[in-house]
Amino acid sequence: MFEAAEIGRTLAKEEFKELEPKIHHQVLQLQQRLRKSDKSLIIIISGVEGAGKGEVVDRLNRWLDIRDVQTHAYWEETDEESQRPKYWRFWRDIPMRGTVAVMFGSWYTNPLIEAAFDRLNEAELDQALTRNRELERTLTDGGAIILKLWFHLPKDEQKNRLESEAKVSKFKKSPLLEEFSKKYDKFVKVSEHALQFTDTGDTPWHIIEATDPRYRDAAVGRALVECLERGLGSDVDQVVQPTTESDPVGSVQLNDAELTVLDAVDLSLALTEKEYSKRLLSLQAELHDLSWQMHKAKRNAVLLFEGWDAGGKGSAIRRLTQAIDARLYRVIPVAAPTDEEKGHHYLWRFWRHVPRAGYITIYDRSWYGRVLVERVEGFARREEWLRSYQEINEFEDQLVDHGVVLCKFWLHISKDEQLRRFKERENEPRKQHKITEEDWRNREKWDDYKLAVNDMVAHTSLDQTSWTLVSGNDKLNARIQILETVCGALRKALGLPPSQESDSG
Amino acid sequence: MFEAAEIGRTLAKEEFKELEPKIHHQVLQLQQRLRKSDKSLIIIISGVEGAGKGEVVDRLNRWLDIRDVQTHAYWEETDEESQRPKYWRFWRDIPMRGTVAVMFGSWYTNPLIEAAFDRLNEAELDQALTRNRELERTLTDGGAIILKLWFHLPKDEQKNRLESEAKVSKFKKSPLLEEFSKKYDKFVKVSEHALQFTDTGDTPWHIIEATDPRYRDAAVGRALVECLERGLGSDVDQVVQPTTESDPVGSVQLNDAELTVLDAVDLSLALTEKEYSKRLLSLQAELHDLSWQMHKAKRNAVLLFEGWDAGGKGSAIRRLTQAIDARLYRVIPVAAPTDEEKGHHYLWRFWRHVPRAGYITIYDRSWYGRVLVERVEGFARREEWLRSYQEINEFEDQLVDHGVVLCKFWLHISKDEQLRRFKERENEPRKQHKITEEDWRNREKWDDYKLAVNDMVAHTSLDQTSWTLVSGNDKLNARIQILETVCGALRKALGLPPSQESDSG
Repeated sequence: MFEAAEIGRTLAKEEFKELEPKIHHQVLQLQQRLRKSDKSLIIIISGVEGAGKGEVVDRLNRWLDIRDVQTHAYWEETDEESQRPKYWRFWRDIPMRGTVAVMFGSWYTNPLIEAAFDRLNEAELDQALTRNRELERTLTDGGAIILKLWFHLPKDEQKNRLESEAKVSKFKKSPLLEEFSKKYDKFVKVSEHALQFTDTGDTPWHIIEATDPRYRDAAVGRALVECLERGLGSDVDQVVQPTTESDPVGSVQLNDAELTVLDAVDLSLALTEKEYSKRLLSLQAELHDLSWQMHKAKRNAVLLFEGWDAGGKGSAIRRLTQAIDARLYRVIPVAAPTDEEKGHHYLWRFWRHVPRAGYITIYDRSWYGRVLVERVEGFARREEWLRSYQEINEFEDQLVDHGVVLCKFWLHISKDEQLRRFKERENEPRKQHKITEEDWRNREKWDDYKLAVNDMVAHTSLDQTSWTLVSGNDKLNARIQILETVCGALRKALGLPPSQESDSG
Repeated sequence: MFEAAEIGRTLAKEEFKELEPKIHHQVLQLQQRLRKSDKSLIIIISGVEGAGKGEVVDRLNRWLDIRDVQTHAYWEETDEESQRPKYWRFWRDIPMRGTVAVMFGSWYTNPLIEAAFDRLNEAELDQALTRNRELERTLTDGGAIILKLWFHLPKDEQKNRLESEAKVSKFKKSPLLEEFSKKYDKFVKVSEHALQFTDTGDTPWHIIEATDPRYRDAAVGRALVECLERGLGSDVDQVVQPTTESDPVGSVQLNDAELTVLDAVDLSLALTEKEYSKRLLSLQAELHDLSWQMHKAKRNAVLLFEGWDAGGKGSAIRRLTQAIDARLYRVIPVAAPTDEEKGHHYLWRFWRHVPRAGYITIYDRSWYGRVLVERVEGFARREEWLRSYQEINEFEDQLVDHGVVLCKFWLHISKDEQLRRFKERENEPRKQHKITEEDWRNREKWDDYKLAVNDMVAHTSLDQTSWTLVSGNDKLNARIQILETVCGALRKALGLPPSQESDSG
């Protein structure tokens, strides 16, 4: 999840200087509309220590007309507070209609800290988070617009900051800072779970990369503007809104598509034919064996493939199916839905193919169509694809809880490589059927897809449901990476040690 | 909760004969609309064994055009099913748009049985129920209309049925029946919790008294018609709909107001002045002592009072406050909200007065205004007051979880007694200020209020949040009953044995 907030996004000084007054202006205008509406706005500021949350609060107070803004910081509970039910302190500060509350810390702060320090177990954390969800639903149903911001720093960056801050000023160093830094990994793990658990369609999380303060603040501005536009029911939400780019007024433009999780994929990886052949044979033999072991252990697996057109999904899948006994797997190619499928919930067609114990289902494209093509092409409304992150997470949690091994692949290639493959297909009679007008049309929306993939990874990648972004410019490399990942996941599920041959670890 | 389904509702043969064809006709018409819509209908049939669920399924299949209806029974899982995630079997049977699925058993069956047989602990049950809620939200967001029916029988009635069935036919006797009967109390306790936990505004439970088959089936018919009307977006829902009675077309009329939980209250109870004086003094002394003990133990209490106009709330509250040190309690009279309160969520004004440790808050009228006056007068939309049961339950759960002692009183009097008191007020100059035009107007809506109280008790009375329905025709009796209940609850909270003087136990 947080990998999507560790990609090094920055904003140049001049760009920020140009953007900032625009944001300020839009925020003020929207606040004016809020004031006249029967809605209120709650902005939740949370995230890792050292991410500059205090600076964000300052910035918000500069952008907003502070006559209608109350800022609340939640740290230690007062006597007054601890003697009452937990939410009392928050209910006290719920803003009136037309006004804004900026909450520095929130109903997430305590459960996360408690869980990070092992004072809450998993079930207790989930119970606390369920209550948070209920609270947010209650407030939202009552007319509150809730903007949930999470500021993330990579581990090293956080460490550097805390150290340099400590040098400059003992004053700024909270007694918990040091412990936090030590607890970074646990805190991140707990936070990822909490964010996903409470990432609903109505109150989604905005995970913001906080390394560059200018990018951070601009991203806050954009989130605030979009959230208010949506919450106040601007026309933007009424019309089908295929991409963020076609929004004529409103929304703050940031070139997020320039840098996404996909740009962290090293596309230079390549294998020689010789290396490839050797490893292919050995991995396929291993997969053959592992799939029979899975069958005997009555374990099931789901492998799903998404990727760019011409990304090499088909040939990669064939390298898997060559290795597995035909009785043990099924490939489900996901094209346009049948009439019957159209008549059902969009998840129905995927549920029906969930494998039984001992079998493997390979989905060639998947339920992620909802947040990829349906989002980009405007087939699903914004609220529909936004809430589908939660629906998908719940679906996959059920698979994982049942013991299903889940591997999710995005086959990544560069835009140039795609062009090369498209042309190759056009020129080779044998391959011409594989290239259509639609492929060319999709290609024009490359940046929209990049953003959609980035959001998809941010919202749906966690521990046992994590995405593998495959380096696919070299097809040979892609196939081996996929085989290794699948074999590794099956070995783990069967309780076997990692393979020696594989150099994936 | 189930007390609202143990009040002996019946329907005469002739009435049923007249009503049944109307229901049939309306159901068919609505099904026709469903067929042309992009919605589907899921009817969940659940409840205690012996309640005639099978007969209900038969009835539904007679009312509905069965070309578009699939009936599914969920009993033991097949191999196919147990080898996949739990919801697979249900997803398989999710109806297509325009069609109907009748589910005999459902995603509730297994968790309830497992919990009743102690194979799931509380946290695990809640986890399962949270998933059910998520599933229903996913389906509803995708266009499904879900009608959740729960059939209830009092314990004795169930026992009689199972015994007589066993005599007639060994064939009908499931091997689990006997165990179920033994486990009745546990099953009921678990079910009440589960129903409350999953009683949402979008997918509320309909708890149906199943003792009389005609009443049972008519109640099913009404629930089905109302649910479809609502789900298909009839005009009924668009307009503010003050009471069920003013619905000109549609809805099936049943005289539920004739018999509600309030009719089970014995209004003949009365005390002589002498008994009253003696017990009042002793109970007030006890309360004085207990409230100081609560203070020392840092426990807080919330006492709330609702009831008919002229029901005697004020004088009953005074008998409490006379006994408690003025430093330890606050009375919050809940009248029309202030501007500030109007600007907030309706629960905000109640949250702000939650007492701190060691103190007592007495609410003279309360958050239940939402499902009483606001419902009956149409100040809240149907969807608003329907979802407020859940919001209120969550609020009260937070109080109880924090250790707050919660006592909820409805002061019940007969309609005649109210008239007598109204006239007395009009005739006595000292009391004239206490009677207004509004009281007379409310009185005209007596039956609507009765239904609203019945629903309120059905949805919000459980263990530590249970309602005390006070027998109030005799004011002296009412005051003693309230004092005894409060003292009993405080004694329990402080870990003291029940009072010897009190005869409430």
